[in-house]
Amino acid sequence: MSSRDGYQWTAETGLLQGVPSISVISPPTYVPPNLNQWDVIVVGAGYSGLTASRDACLAGLRVLLIEARDRIGGRSWSSNIGGYPFEMGGTWVHWGQPHVWREISRYQMRSELEPSFDFSHGVNHFQLRTHHGSSVFSHEEEDTLLAGALQKFVDVDGEMGRKIMPYPHDAFHNPSSRQYDDMSVLDRLNELAQSLTPNERAVVESFILLCSCGTLDTTSFFEFLHWWALCGYSYRGCMDYLISYKFKGGQSSFAIRFFRESLATGRLSYTFNSPVQSIDDQGHKVVVNTRDGRHYCSARLVSTIPLNVLSSVSFYPPLDPRRAVALSTGHVNQCVKVHAEIASPKMRSWTGISYPFNKLTYALADGTTPAGNTHIVCFGGAHNHLQPEEDLDETKRAVENLSPGNMDIKRLVWFILDVSSRGLCIFADFKMLQVFHNWCKDEFAKGAWFFSPPQLVSKSLDVLRSRHGNVLFANSDWAVGWRSFIDGAIEEGTHAAMTVLEELRPQPDIRSLL
Amino acid sequence: MSSRDGYQWTAETGLLQGVPSISVISPPTYVPPNLNQWDVIVVGAGYSGLTASRDACLAGLRVLLIEARDRIGGRSWSSNIGGYPFEMGGTWVHWGQPHVWREISRYQMRSELEPSFDFSHGVNHFQLRTHHGSSVFSHEEEDTLLAGALQKFVDVDGEMGRKIMPYPHDAFHNPSSRQYDDMSVLDRLNELAQSLTPNERAVVESFILLCSCGTLDTTSFFEFLHWWALCGYSYRGCMDYLISYKFKGGQSSFAIRFFRESLATGRLSYTFNSPVQSIDDQGHKVVVNTRDGRHYCSARLVSTIPLNVLSSVSFYPPLDPRRAVALSTGHVNQCVKVHAEIASPKMRSWTGISYPFNKLTYALADGTTPAGNTHIVCFGGAHNHLQPEEDLDETKRAVENLSPGNMDIKRLVWFILDVSSRGLCIFADFKMLQVFHNWCKDEFAKGAWFFSPPQLVSKSLDVLRSRHGNVLFANSDWAVGWRSFIDGAIEEGTHAAMTVLEELRPQPDIRSLL
Repeated sequence: MSSRDGYQWTAETGLLQGVPSISVISPPTYVPPNLNQWDVIVVGAGYSGLTASRDACLAGLRVLLIEARDRIGGRSWSSNIGGYPFEMGGTWVHWGQPHVWREISRYQMRSELEPSFDFSHGVNHFQLRTHHGSSVFSHEEEDTLLAGALQKFVDVDGEMGRKIMPYPHDAFHNPSSRQYDDMSVLDRLNELAQSLTPNERAVVESFILLCSCGTLDTTSFFEFLHWWALCGYSYRGCMDYLISYKFKGGQSSFAIRFFRESLATGRLSYTFNSPVQSIDDQGHKVVVNTRDGRHYCSARLVSTIPLNVLSSVSFYPPLDPRRAVALSTGHVNQCVKVHAEIASPKMRSWTGISYPFNKLTYALADGTTPAGNTHIVCFGGAHNHLQPEEDLDETKRAVENLSPGNMDIKRLVWFILDVSSRGLCIFADFKMLQVFHNWCKDEFAKGAWFFSPPQLVSKSLDVLRSRHGNVLFANSDWAVGWRSFIDGAIEEGTHAAMTVLEELRPQPDIRSLL
Repeated sequence: MSSRDGYQWTAETGLLQGVPSISVISPPTYVPPNLNQWDVIVVGAGYSGLTASRDACLAGLRVLLIEARDRIGGRSWSSNIGGYPFEMGGTWVHWGQPHVWREISRYQMRSELEPSFDFSHGVNHFQLRTHHGSSVFSHEEEDTLLAGALQKFVDVDGEMGRKIMPYPHDAFHNPSSRQYDDMSVLDRLNELAQSLTPNERAVVESFILLCSCGTLDTTSFFEFLHWWALCGYSYRGCMDYLISYKFKGGQSSFAIRFFRESLATGRLSYTFNSPVQSIDDQGHKVVVNTRDGRHYCSARLVSTIPLNVLSSVSFYPPLDPRRAVALSTGHVNQCVKVHAEIASPKMRSWTGISYPFNKLTYALADGTTPAGNTHIVCFGGAHNHLQPEEDLDETKRAVENLSPGNMDIKRLVWFILDVSSRGLCIFADFKMLQVFHNWCKDEFAKGAWFFSPPQLVSKSLDVLRSRHGNVLFANSDWAVGWRSFIDGAIEEGTHAAMTVLEELRPQPDIRSLL
């Protein structure tokens, strides 16, 4: 099946809407004719919604899953093009991420990971391009440079952040950590102006912007410290947890397990292609109205609508004004992720930063396609924003600029995958493939993974996590632990399902003995 | 409630059987009178059995939980004495352990951890006592010494084990890792004879024996490499993951959540004090016979009986001979864990190793009791074995010997907690408390956490994990990931419940679309 979340072009077929993905569900709707009320409606089929639906179905509840798109996975999905899984969004996982790993283990997928990095051959170096010139480092030198810079950046307590944030899953355990949410990353860099070398400053800024895809002044220092703590307070942890291990079969090979298990219970109804207009909590039931005029009702509702999208849905009664303020603030991640297929197989061991002049700043070789070409994944963000489909030449130059002379652009194919503009695709040659999903313009995401501006988390996390009558809110954007990550989405879906289950479960004759 | 897994003595009461624990279930049996067949019988109420029972109950199956003891938790349980939770077995957890942390997060217990270590005041040092004399190090020097020694020990591939075991949850991913299961820790030490200093050798041997509680020649080098990989291939990871974070309320405050949730479904039957005599798989059903002559039957059975105990139960049809061989080999962990309450509050920041002459080799200050005394936890094992209740003076000397002059033995109370000998308790004074559970003599454990001799895992892990008709085997002793740990127990219980559920779930009219 193909998702309309993308387009592709070949010389033979011309422009075709849709990229293939096992995440597309067909038929798109299954609602038994006699069923008109559910125990729980789950809005959104990303990992939060998939987890909440599955757990509720497993526990015997009747569930209706409503999704705006034609596919599962939300901001994590993969498209298999030419036998190679391109990750359109969230990609990397790690066994130290507890919720996602519990599921990988439960689905017996422990052996289905592979590393992104392969520092074994060919152009086996790190290329740093800044205003000061271009340098080449061994990957060991890359590690030393980045580790040193990051350690200076995070060391607010003489213990690399361990004292200020001793429990990464309880980030305000030490109340002193709150002060760092009043600071932007730029504020912190200004404190360190005299102690970072120019190269250290370039790589630390690039790395942080890879994490937030915002700008230095809109990125919360607290939130970066939180990522650092989650990554074991080490540079090596950052590499391992954040950008190293992916599914051989792509993210959608994982997400589909949740959906299939829910289906197998016989208790899942679902409807895709169904953007929600409004959610009306009438006290004794919740009514969901879709944009195309359908109505569904249930005892409880789990909204997994992302932070940056939630204000587009009307709620009755209206949402808490404090939540509304947080929604209007939103998160800052405007990631641009471009996949490039480069003719040269020698580039497999390459990594690079081009900053700040380039519109794609951080890139790494991520695999070898069946054709023997090198797959390079490139990241940009709000600080020097690129809208790939608006200026394809600019995108091409941004890829070239990462490693002039090595990106063989005489041979180039672009796929532009964009939800809102519904696609645009330019051909140059067959040997290089570019794939991307413009999350910023995606009306059902309005940004990529969560990354907070200063003060959002310390002021609004509690209200974002709070319920609204019979409506629960579950999304990685306000997870406690691995917020922004697939792990956080599963954390949230697990919690929502458990809450619903405790409330709706018929009360047995529990003896008072415990 | 009090568990008979222990005794206590005070001057007022004299010797009393039982130590208080919320892990004791009362009434000890709840089997509805009309029920004589279950969907699944789970044998064992440790974390594997608790998880399997809970997941099966949640999914709508009728479950009978059969346990030999009077309490839940198996080899992890806590006794609250004088307002202080003494951990009788498995203690430490970490957010990087995926299965246990998923549960901690799901039960909203993220804020209920506290650190064992507190390096802030008083006798704030590491004391190393060897045949060569006694030395005092700062804790930073302790870290440097241990980190250096361990790094030499594990660095078989120039990458600290990352190359030989790149996926800790898929330990044979690189087949070359198997060769290290042919080696004992002693074999590896012999290779390093010329490169370890005497102090390095003393601390690395002590640390490994803290992990295995076997002897150097009965401890598999592979298994230690597996622990190292799980700990992020670092000394700091070992400290953080293995011996740093515990529940403020004790392990039993966590275990009881699983049991209560199972009860709340109304689908759990249970019987404690019910050692199993035999398990008879008749094909269409499984029949369990208890030692006291009761019979129960079910469609599936999940045995969570530990490796070292499983051969005491009769199976029909007989177990696979290869499994029987593995059972007769068993694991080597003969841990002796002694809790000492020391009068001096100044000892809170102390750690120590006394090796190899002392029968308690590794010890650390673990808390301050409500009375203001220091709680020190001391470990010994098979290499210089102590049976505490057989010679209480020897136990006392072993504690004293950890830090002569600092363990104020003029003021001393011992509690001897021992299942098989059913208790023995000696009083000396009120200001020092010793608590222990002799896992080696415990007929339902026959050892502490799993640690393998050479060749057991590489030859027998698959057969230990295999099913036997309608009988599934779930125990941390043969987990894939955090084998030996609470995490591994939950991994196993999760997997067993899912398998049973897939087999017993009524098959709905699943459309063939996916």
